[in-house]
Amino acid sequence: MEPVIELVSTGDEVLTGLITDTNAGWLSQRLLEQGWQVRRRFTVGDDKADLVELFVQRSHQADLVIVNGGLGPTSDDISAEAMAEAAGAPLELNQHWLEVMQQKYSSRNRPMPQSNSKQAMLPQGAELVDNPVGTACGFAIRLNRAIFYFTPGVPSELKKMMDDEILPRLRGQFGQNGHSQVRRFFLFGLSESGLSDRLDSLPWPAGITLGYRANLPTIELKLITETEDADAIAMAEAQLLAEVGTHLVCRDEMNFGTTLGPLLHHKDLIVFEDASGGRLTDTISTITPEFEGHYLAGLPDSAEDLALWLQRSARPIALAIGAEGPQGVPIALHTGQGCQAQTLKVHFRDPLNRRRLLAFAAFDMLRRHLVGETVMVDYDILPCNERFTLSA
Amino acid sequence: MEPVIELVSTGDEVLTGLITDTNAGWLSQRLLEQGWQVRRRFTVGDDKADLVELFVQRSHQADLVIVNGGLGPTSDDISAEAMAEAAGAPLELNQHWLEVMQQKYSSRNRPMPQSNSKQAMLPQGAELVDNPVGTACGFAIRLNRAIFYFTPGVPSELKKMMDDEILPRLRGQFGQNGHSQVRRFFLFGLSESGLSDRLDSLPWPAGITLGYRANLPTIELKLITETEDADAIAMAEAQLLAEVGTHLVCRDEMNFGTTLGPLLHHKDLIVFEDASGGRLTDTISTITPEFEGHYLAGLPDSAEDLALWLQRSARPIALAIGAEGPQGVPIALHTGQGCQAQTLKVHFRDPLNRRRLLAFAAFDMLRRHLVGETVMVDYDILPCNERFTLSA
Repeated sequence: MEPVIELVSTGDEVLTGLITDTNAGWLSQRLLEQGWQVRRRFTVGDDKADLVELFVQRSHQADLVIVNGGLGPTSDDISAEAMAEAAGAPLELNQHWLEVMQQKYSSRNRPMPQSNSKQAMLPQGAELVDNPVGTACGFAIRLNRAIFYFTPGVPSELKKMMDDEILPRLRGQFGQNGHSQVRRFFLFGLSESGLSDRLDSLPWPAGITLGYRANLPTIELKLITETEDADAIAMAEAQLLAEVGTHLVCRDEMNFGTTLGPLLHHKDLIVFEDASGGRLTDTISTITPEFEGHYLAGLPDSAEDLALWLQRSARPIALAIGAEGPQGVPIALHTGQGCQAQTLKVHFRDPLNRRRLLAFAAFDMLRRHLVGETVMVDYDILPCNERFTLSA
Repeated sequence: MEPVIELVSTGDEVLTGLITDTNAGWLSQRLLEQGWQVRRRFTVGDDKADLVELFVQRSHQADLVIVNGGLGPTSDDISAEAMAEAAGAPLELNQHWLEVMQQKYSSRNRPMPQSNSKQAMLPQGAELVDNPVGTACGFAIRLNRAIFYFTPGVPSELKKMMDDEILPRLRGQFGQNGHSQVRRFFLFGLSESGLSDRLDSLPWPAGITLGYRANLPTIELKLITETEDADAIAMAEAQLLAEVGTHLVCRDEMNFGTTLGPLLHHKDLIVFEDASGGRLTDTISTITPEFEGHYLAGLPDSAEDLALWLQRSARPIALAIGAEGPQGVPIALHTGQGCQAQTLKVHFRDPLNRRRLLAFAAFDMLRRHLVGETVMVDYDILPCNERFTLSA
């Protein structure tokens, strides 16, 4: 039986959005790597009554609650106090931790501020969890169904405490879970809805689910396997790959450098762009530094004109994004095999997204050429209004 | 009586930490600017039973619940379905929204995928909330004590819907809560901690608070006023402006186009970059299309060499970012008044953030020249290792 795991993020700054809660995401990912999926997350401010109510409520619903933040020395750090109240246990001085803190200060030749002694006050019955890098110790305490772990809000302290102290305890308490795995596929040019229409109508083996995430310019497609049946997983992956075809641009992570970098080595590539404003150069320079990129206003605005213009650049590979014209924005790739150009319509109005899509579409023509695929294909999200080809 | 406001973020990707939930922070801040503080936030995955349970539970505790995400066309988008079940109301086809979606597709000469029709299914009794930029409409529905607003997960769609549709309704439903206002100042080159040390030690009038948000390459500094005392606000703003000096790059929003665009008009600017990989061209092209940008690997790697190299470009204004060298990355600006160059050390390791900072530092030299400020100044976050000047 999988444990019900919940996270509680505390602090007014997190709740009001003044700071972004990156700890919660890190915790979820770390737990998932161990095979444990977080079920719910709660974010509350520095309000004791709200915290007490939440701790009592979660203690009946969850097996494990990881609480992050509120262990500092200041008056708005109230996690321990709230837990003591929720558990009906008084706060007690942990003499050991007080001495550890005094040691930390005296090793820096500084007196310990009075306010720090508060950090050694733990609910009666709590187990101390060491913090080797800060003065906020963690602690574990059971209430009703749940074990609560309290962790510091400083990201480096949280990470060290989780990896060195808490995860080993959890493996003892809940056992290793794991066979839930995620395989990721990054696709370009398909719409999320078109893709899901096609994929959701296919038969998938038990224990296999699909996830989608649109993240312009690409879509991330996830194959989530909760089975150990290797044949079923292989069949599901083959079915997925057959369906997405050459729209697959990357696997596992968005890292073209490793696959395309070597293919671009010594290719003497030149890039020109207008409507994409520098994004194409920016994209390609993350893969290889070995090329030239030029932004010029006033490039041709049709596929034919851009192809003819690009043909004059006497380089082995030349790639160009023209100006916005009546049919859309032309993109052309010139190689030893000739020149291929297409004019695509971008429906996004946001200028940054327009640039991202145009740059990626041009990059995709280059990618297809490098891996030996057909260079011009239909994109759901970028309708093509004209095509033009020049033979070598 | 202040309304109890809660947020619900949905989606496996957010819950598992695969993506960081920036929408929740934005929503909290936007509501805070209107004088409404979010009390609690809940994050749940794409699990219908969990969503239904949560909606029912919150409907008894909150006055307003804003739900984000799960309105897409795919099978894991289940927010409307879960709300229908929580409210005991069937899903009904909203004929108007179906037609709006069909219109959106036919204006692009494409058939609407079957899966999109799901996005027009709303719980009976729900009020449609328009989404002018996407196919995921929002909706509002009352259950027990609470009004629920359902919003799309795509950030640009969420923001437009909140500002244009939902906030006006909330002002009608909950009244304007006072006169809390926010003025924004965008700064470059200062560190957040250095800035807050200096500003927090100054005396500020009652009803005035400061907020900070580091958002590379700039810092957003907020002056939050909860007073109607115009003299106090003017005094606070003057004190803030005196302290940040010429590090102020923008007010109200990050939009250089309106202020710097006209100053760049017909200036015949040329830009060269190496270590920034295209980002400088990308930044400047958001302001004006009238310039030339070139990415070249192998530019000089010291301030002196870059200045001498740049001097040869016979243009009225030339700006360059060189290659990474032993002292850092050189940046040079050549104008009718001569050439000024400096080598800056970037401590960030993440490649994207390095590029952003370098591009913005070069852009800042150009900005300073255009508005008549000293071109080279000390940046807290980018220590300068060498400077070199050539007279005209």
